[in-house]
This record gives sequence, structure tokens and C-alpha cells, in this order.
Amino acid sequence: MGARMVVVGADATGMAAASQARRLRGAGELEIVVFEKGQHSSYSACGIPYWVAGDVAEADDLIARSVADHRARDIDLRMRTEVLAIDPEKRRVLARDLDTGAQGWTGYDQLVLATGATPIRPPLPGIDAEGVYGVQTLDDGQALIEGLESAGGRKAVVVGAGYIGVEMAEALVRRKFEVTMVTRGAEPMSTLDPDMGALVRKAMEGMGIRVIRGTEVTGMRTSEQGRVCAVTTADTKYPADVVVLGIGVQPATDLARRAGLPLGESGGLLTDLAQRVRGYDDIWAGGDCVEVLDLVSGSQRHIPLGTHANKHGQVIGSGVGGGYATFPGVVGTAMSKVCDLEVARTGLGEDDARRAGLQFHAVTIESTGRAGYFPGAEPMTVKMLAERRTGRLLGVQIVGYTGAAKRIDIAAVALTARMTVEQITALDLGYAPPFSPVWDPILVAARAAVRAVATGH
Amino acid sequence: MGARMVVVGADATGMAAASQARRLRGAGELEIVVFEKGQHSSYSACGIPYWVAGDVAEADDLIARSVADHRARDIDLRMRTEVLAIDPEKRRVLARDLDTGAQGWTGYDQLVLATGATPIRPPLPGIDAEGVYGVQTLDDGQALIEGLESAGGRKAVVVGAGYIGVEMAEALVRRKFEVTMVTRGAEPMSTLDPDMGALVRKAMEGMGIRVIRGTEVTGMRTSEQGRVCAVTTADTKYPADVVVLGIGVQPATDLARRAGLPLGESGGLLTDLAQRVRGYDDIWAGGDCVEVLDLVSGSQRHIPLGTHANKHGQVIGSGVGGGYATFPGVVGTAMSKVCDLEVARTGLGEDDARRAGLQFHAVTIESTGRAGYFPGAEPMTVKMLAERRTGRLLGVQIVGYTGAAKRIDIAAVALTARMTVEQITALDLGYAPPFSPVWDPILVAARAAVRAVATGH
Repeated sequence: MGARMVVVGADATGMAAASQARRLRGAGELEIVVFEKGQHSSYSACGIPYWVAGDVAEADDLIARSVADHRARDIDLRMRTEVLAIDPEKRRVLARDLDTGAQGWTGYDQLVLATGATPIRPPLPGIDAEGVYGVQTLDDGQALIEGLESAGGRKAVVVGAGYIGVEMAEALVRRKFEVTMVTRGAEPMSTLDPDMGALVRKAMEGMGIRVIRGTEVTGMRTSEQGRVCAVTTADTKYPADVVVLGIGVQPATDLARRAGLPLGESGGLLTDLAQRVRGYDDIWAGGDCVEVLDLVSGSQRHIPLGTHANKHGQVIGSGVGGGYATFPGVVGTAMSKVCDLEVARTGLGEDDARRAGLQFHAVTIESTGRAGYFPGAEPMTVKMLAERRTGRLLGVQIVGYTGAAKRIDIAAVALTARMTVEQITALDLGYAPPFSPVWDPILVAARAAVRAVATGH
Repeated sequence: MGARMVVVGADATGMAAASQARRLRGAGELEIVVFEKGQHSSYSACGIPYWVAGDVAEADDLIARSVADHRARDIDLRMRTEVLAIDPEKRRVLARDLDTGAQGWTGYDQLVLATGATPIRPPLPGIDAEGVYGVQTLDDGQALIEGLESAGGRKAVVVGAGYIGVEMAEALVRRKFEVTMVTRGAEPMSTLDPDMGALVRKAMEGMGIRVIRGTEVTGMRTSEQGRVCAVTTADTKYPADVVVLGIGVQPATDLARRAGLPLGESGGLLTDLAQRVRGYDDIWAGGDCVEVLDLVSGSQRHIPLGTHANKHGQVIGSGVGGGYATFPGVVGTAMSKVCDLEVARTGLGEDDARRAGLQFHAVTIESTGRAGYFPGAEPMTVKMLAERRTGRLLGVQIVGYTGAAKRIDIAAVALTARMTVEQITALDLGYAPPFSPVWDPILVAARAAVRAVATGH
């Protein structure tokens, strides 16, 4: 009889790990059991705002591979089954069937923790009222869409201004809601420096979204029927027929914590480069429940993102299946859009760099996404950070229109290769008038950064 | 009195060199004289197809900086003045004013050759007939536009299927001509491998362009009035009211050759990394008249492209101005579009790699430019070459739609950093459903390449 791989969580990491392990080991060699407390597997949480906006027709479109697909590949996927405890000593997990209430221990040879993240829900008065929605799971998305359709009015408040908050604000505008966004940050998208975040805010305001900054939400006011009717702050209230929480997420590691597994500052699991939980030979973890190595600052960070989750799953599946793969780390690339405005960042922002003990020069340039004379040439703002003296690239932020966001990949690769801004000025980037000025905006920014490094200011 | 910089050619390289030198050295320190035989300076030749297509309204839009702008910066720009000879011994050039016929020698301390390239015009019968157009200069563009407006019929033949030929074919279709393209290549765009070029051909055929492949043009048939009426091949003739030559260009180095300067196999000038002509301390060259170092194959190549020309000018201007800069080389990035189809390549194609003595694995994958469930997700084909055994990335070719072409920059940076395909699979590329599937097509190709390298086939 073969070994048994037990996976906790059937989303990107868990199912990528199971699939990859199955590719390497047949059912005779490796039994694969996956426990999932929800009722969906392998779905794109990142797609939820576009489903709410109406771009994507239905939840099924967001499901990459169905439960039946997985089972057809000899993966014993047990839906609506919650893992209650891990016993690393005895190499077993305690799981309960949420429908029947039956529970029992299942032994493992290799355990994969892919428990994901949970939305932050501060203990505010009224946060559990009807009409207040999170947007983490497909069920959340379904509840929100139904809530929007039955809402008594057209006022929506989005709490939080991260990627998901900004994407939800756009979705609500497109659903004909009057949208107010409340954030404690100085500007929306706190992974951008405030000067770049301000460009995003202006675009949002241009869409009719009211952005309330530097403001803590103190609670939700509810009607006598227990339905949310306003979001309150220290000195104001914002009427709301619907409230969407986009405050962010935290690693779902209660289970791991109770089992004594090592967690980082963010609460995410700590792993080695092969995604094995530190100190354990037979427990692996990946996706939104782990911390990742930031290759630019050298620190551990919690960056919940589908693309990392999939890579982690791939690496874990290779390892469990007897192959070899590693996840070397991230450079912190992220992107989004607000209507036509494209937004992207990679590497360190000013605060990140200071926290890492780095001194730097920051430059910001204005260019266009196409040759200036080409019709539809739209403005693009690029901010670039270069380390003082060495000139090493530290980070890039881009706000612009068509073709702006994916340009961040140039910087992502350059960061990975630890290039200096001088080296970047010589890159042989694609040029044709419909796609780029003869000096790509990234090159223009790099030239400005070279001058800043050379002159010291 | 200061030194004198003499520049031959007032397009991208020449004027970028002059401008950069002027930035570093004031008029009291450095006299700058530029000779230009034509009547335009600093224009975008790459923009001509879009001007002909009607995207760009007029020639002036393609001029980055006027003659008056340059003169206002103390650059003595002498238009319609042809340099007839270089005398490196006596450090002087012989120039003639094409309007007055006056000629004389001008001494230099530093000479910059930025003579560009000239279109290849094979000595075919009828090639100089009325109705046959090149598309290298603004005057060519103007003549062509006038020729299209006065053409007696709607049949156009494009000879050659490089970037300019393909772009011109599209422009002519948009001008309501019935277009036939004749190429001796197996497929259009010979800088792509034929399997990828075939995708471009099919898109062109879908636009109604007739593509005649593997066929040499033998001449032009002309009317009694001396106007072109057909393009002939060994066994057929193609009726033509207008013929556009897009056969390619060659380095314009007659002047350099006569002065005994070192030329490479392509006829382009050979320079060192600071763009100094090999063996000379006081002669610099850049742009379409030089060969560049291909960092992937290690060989010298002639790659006429505005983006290199501008960088060369920058490097030369820095050097002449007493600063320091180099042009390390290229990786061979190029891109274009045919209507909505985007096409890009970088690094080595299969033939390039074989010529360089490299053995490789080639993989081709199909993916989409956005998350598969996102509306408007369009197909994208990526071909990737990885060196046998080492797995080093050798080249990438992309054919797709929105957002396809600029993805080539990921590969361009990875080639510059000499990454392996395994390293590429771990890159932290931007991900959001409107811009990319969770595995970017470049990552999908890299994973396929890793498997090919690992299994040896």
C-alpha cells in the first residue's frame, strides 16, 4: 500500500499540490485526501469583483476545475469537511463532516496546509448586520449580488481601499450605486506611495466615487429590522443601503497555531524554500496562509495573491511527489485597474525601503503608453526607487492607461536579477509606435534615477 | 576656443548625440556642427506606415524636434548639406551645400557618423518607374500618400514582408486598396520562425491581403507613360496601380567605406562598447549605420531600429561630452501589429540559434491574454527556445491580441540577465484577471520549456 497525502483546503494551493503530486505518482503509489470545509474548490477569488460588476456571468465561470474533475483524477476530495485539529506527533488530522456531524482522525504521511486567508472583520458594532458583505468566497459573492439586487436604495459604502476595495467600488458604480469609500489610509491603495495613490483617488473621484481618507470606521448603524443603514466614523455618518468590507485579510492559521507550528509576525506560517513548514519534514504549506520571502528587502511578508498560491501548490506537489522544486520568493508585484486606469507596483515603496534600512532616491516621470504622435497616446506616470550609491533598483509604481500595468513586469524581472537602474537604461525593450515611445516610460524613469544616483539628489 | 564636434546625419542618433553633448558642454566649450543632406531632422521613420494609414495626420507630427529647436540650443544644423568625404588623417570632412553647390572642408575634433540606412532597391527592370515607392524618409511618405491619392486604380502590391512591408500592407488595406504582398520568404516576418509567421499570414489573409510566398519578384511592368502597371515573378504577373518596396534596408556606409573605416559582414560600421569606431579615438558611430552586439549569440548584427539609434546617440553624446556611457548590446527585441494582431520576438529564432552553434528545445503553448473567464480573453501563442542541458532562455516569439506584444519585454529582461527557463517559472509577474491568467503565458511557456529540457525532448 502507498503513502497518504492529506491536504487541508481545496483552493488554488491545495488543488495545485494535489494535481501535481498525482501527475508524479499514480493512485497505486500515493493516496490523496483533500478536506475542504466550503462547498467550492479551485475557484478564482480574484475574479469576484468582476462577477459582481457583471463582467463575469456566473460563479461557475470562476471555478477552474470542478469537484468531479478532481475526483476523476483519483483525488479523494471531501467537501464540507472541516479539519479541527492537527496532531503532528501522531501524524494525523481530526476532521468533521459539517453535514452529518461525523468526525474522526485521518493519518498522513505528508500533510499540506492550504487553509488560505480570512477577511479581517474588526469587532465593530453592527458589523454582522444584514446588508454588510465580505468578498472572499464565492458564497460571499453570491450573497452580495443578491443583496445588491434586493437593496432598498442605491447608496453603498466600501470600507477599506486596498485592491479588493477599489475593485468593488468600481463594480458598485457599474451596478449604478452611489459609492462612498472610507479608508484610514492617506490615499487608496496603501501598497502605493501616497503620491501615486492620489492619482488613483482622483480617477475614482472622476468616476463619481466619494473617497473619505484618513478616517476610521467606528461602526455600522442598523435599522429596527437589523439591517445596516449607515457607516459611522468619529464625527460623521455615511448612509448605506449596502456595505462592502474590503479591509484586507489575515492568514487562516488558527489550526496551525494550535498545533504549535511556527508562525511569522503576520500570523502566516513560516516555510523553507521548498514550502515545507520550518522544522517539519512532513508538513508543507503554501498560499494565503504562509509568509513569503521578499527578495528585495530580505524580509518575510504576507502577500495573499492567487499567482503565488498556484506556484506554491506546484512546488509542494513536486516535493510530495518525489520531485524537486522551490519557490525562491517574491518581489512584491501587484496590479489592478479602476475603469480604464491601470495601476501596478513591484518591489519596495518608500516606507518599505526605509523599514528595510535602505537609503534611496525616488524619481517620478510622466510619459505616454504609445509614441506621443500616435492616436490614443495616454499619460503614464512611473515612480522608481533606486538605492543610494549602488543604484540598485528597489521598486517601481505605475499609474496610467492601456498597457501601463503589465509594464511592471519589466521591473519585476529586473528586481529579480538585481539590476541597477543604469543597467535598466540599456535594456532592449520592445518598441513600435502603437505600443511605446522610442524610450519606454520605464527607461525614461531609469534615466532619471541614474541622474539622481549620480548627483546624489 | 573650444573643440568642434561634427555630426553626419541629423536623425535620431545624430541629434541625440548632439543634444546630449550640448547638455554636458556649453557652446563656449564645444562647437557642434551637424550636416544633413535631407530636409528633415529628428523624425520617426517608424511612424511612416501609421501616417500613410491615416492614424497620424501629417508629417510634422513625426518630427520630434524641429531644425529651429536644435539651432536654438546652439547646434549648427546645416540642412541639405551632403558630406562627400571623410579624411581621418587630417580630421576633416568635405561637405557640399546641395542648394548652392558650394563645398569645402570642415575640421573636427570628434566626428559622429549617423548616416543611417538606405532601402534595398534591387536592380530590377522598372524599379524606378512612376508608382513605385520606398518608405524610408518623410519625403518617401509624402510621395506615397500623394501617389495613393492620384492612383488610377485600387490595386497595390507590397514587395517584401518584413515589419515595414506588413505595416504598409495594413495601411494600404485601410486606404481601401486591394493588396497583394509578394515575399521570397516562407512566411511573412522572417524574424519569426515560419510556424509563428504563418499565424501572421493567416491574420493578414483574414484582412483580405493576398500573400504570395516563396516567390522572387523579377521586375515591374510599366505602361507606355512609364507608370508601373504590374509586378512580375518567374511565372505570373500581379497587376499594380501602386507598388511599395519593403524589402529591407542596408547600412548607409559608402562614405565610411571610402574613408577606410572598419565594416562588418552586413556592411555596418564596427564600434566598441562606447560606440567609438574600432581603431579610432575620435570617430563615433551609431544607429542604422552600425552593427550591434547580439548578447544572446555573441555575434555582430545589423538591426536598424529607432530605439537603438536613440540609445547610441545618448551614449555618443555622453562620450563626446566627457562623460561615460556604453551600449552593452541588444537581445533582438522587435514588435509590430497587423490590425488587432500583436506580434513580438526577442532573442534567437531556431535558425539564429543553429547558426550560433547552439542546441535547444523549442516549445509552443496556447494561452490567453487575460483570465480565461474574463470577457475579451483572446488567444495568445508563445514559442520559447531554451538551450539544451543548461536551460538558458534563448528566445521568445509571441503572436496574440491586446497585451500580447509588450509581454516580450519579460523575455528581453530575462535574456539580458541570462536567466534559465526554470528561473523564469518563478518570476513574480503581475497578475489580475483583466490583464493575465494566474499563470502568465510566459510562465506557461517556461514551464513547458523546463519539461523539455528535463526530459531531453
